[in-house]
Amino acid sequence: MINKQHKAHGKKAVVLLSGGLDSSVVLYLARKKGFECYCLAFDYNQRHLRELKSARAIAQSAKCGIEVMKISFPWRGSSLLDKGVELPGGRRVLPNTYVPGRNIIFLSFALSYAEAIKAKAIFIGAHAQDYSGYPDCRAEFFQAFKRVVNTGTRAGKRIKVFTPLINKSKAEIVKIGRSLNLPFALTWSCYKGALKPCGKCDSCFYRAKGFKEAAMEDPLIS
Amino acid sequence: MINKQHKAHGKKAVVLLSGGLDSSVVLYLARKKGFECYCLAFDYNQRHLRELKSARAIAQSAKCGIEVMKISFPWRGSSLLDKGVELPGGRRVLPNTYVPGRNIIFLSFALSYAEAIKAKAIFIGAHAQDYSGYPDCRAEFFQAFKRVVNTGTRAGKRIKVFTPLINKSKAEIVKIGRSLNLPFALTWSCYKGALKPCGKCDSCFYRAKGFKEAAMEDPLIS
Repeated sequence: MINKQHKAHGKKAVVLLSGGLDSSVVLYLARKKGFECYCLAFDYNQRHLRELKSARAIAQSAKCGIEVMKISFPWRGSSLLDKGVELPGGRRVLPNTYVPGRNIIFLSFALSYAEAIKAKAIFIGAHAQDYSGYPDCRAEFFQAFKRVVNTGTRAGKRIKVFTPLINKSKAEIVKIGRSLNLPFALTWSCYKGALKPCGKCDSCFYRAKGFKEAAMEDPLIS
Repeated sequence: MINKQHKAHGKKAVVLLSGGLDSSVVLYLARKKGFECYCLAFDYNQRHLRELKSARAIAQSAKCGIEVMKISFPWRGSSLLDKGVELPGGRRVLPNTYVPGRNIIFLSFALSYAEAIKAKAIFIGAHAQDYSGYPDCRAEFFQAFKRVVNTGTRAGKRIKVFTPLINKSKAEIVKIGRSLNLPFALTWSCYKGALKPCGKCDSCFYRAKGFKEAAMEDPLIS
């Protein structure tokens, strides 16, 4: 979590924003902590490109700029990239929605951005509870990435990587969002890019679980 | 260095190839070690886009496929990206040719590629002697990145990151290239994208030093 030392006002932070629930909560949290936030989103031809519309809307609601980077994964290897592969419905150890190296690539660009604009912090909304078991969402991975930041950049230890939701349940994340007046209706979680959430994919499953356990209605589907 | 354990034939490797001297030597080295090599190069609107022509030629000479990924650094922050900034001529601690996070981003894409095609290895030609002092070329950074691979991917420890040149001088690299019959004339090192190497930039400086100390003529300029 963010301690007082980093609660300085006027300090810049790069916030990885997908437009989903978790990253939107993190943006509002970083702003609350006094950071001047620069959002970074990715168009990687994901199945749910729809989420970028939400990312832009959430950034605008928080009065922050947003950079949408176009990148590609020509080697595919994930059902999120390949519409020919069916999305998983049930729970399993590691679903085929896993995109090899995705968070590592996202964090690397965030790091480059942070170093170029002299930001002091990078925020990412990953968490390892109520999630799909992606290896690049675990605490030990973020610990390793922090070491990469410390050793592989000019900024070194001047850039901190924050994962404020890492140990939170989806219900706790919903509650934090509520306390920050996050406009939940602007966020998007469903892996399918339809007009309404499918209610069946992993992402819809965990979102619904979170709202239910937080005893709150999801304005996106109500 | 690569030990016998990883010298298996038929194993796939992703090789980061810029078209420069170091990465070309590494490609030939990986191939010699029996790896089936998949080259990965980047078009990031670098000043010396000319190097990609060399990367393609070197990959072809080694009978390997090459993937050229287009990425961008919209936040700039380096003289290699911004033609309005003069290239450094002399030696200094960290020249303005440093691109924040570049090797981290390159390695992250290599990792994604490696995991998607079930490669066992990633090769990168970085070295921390006769170099410009870039933080993302140092041994401690690569150690940290290996930990990222181990913790942040499904493949985990099944993907090894090799930096066979890390402790080599430029002269030693030239000698290794010679022993492997590397077609040096196809490589490109100069940061300026002209028809002939400028002979003044950092990259030309170290290349010339290497050939001189190896008592060899550089076929690119002779």
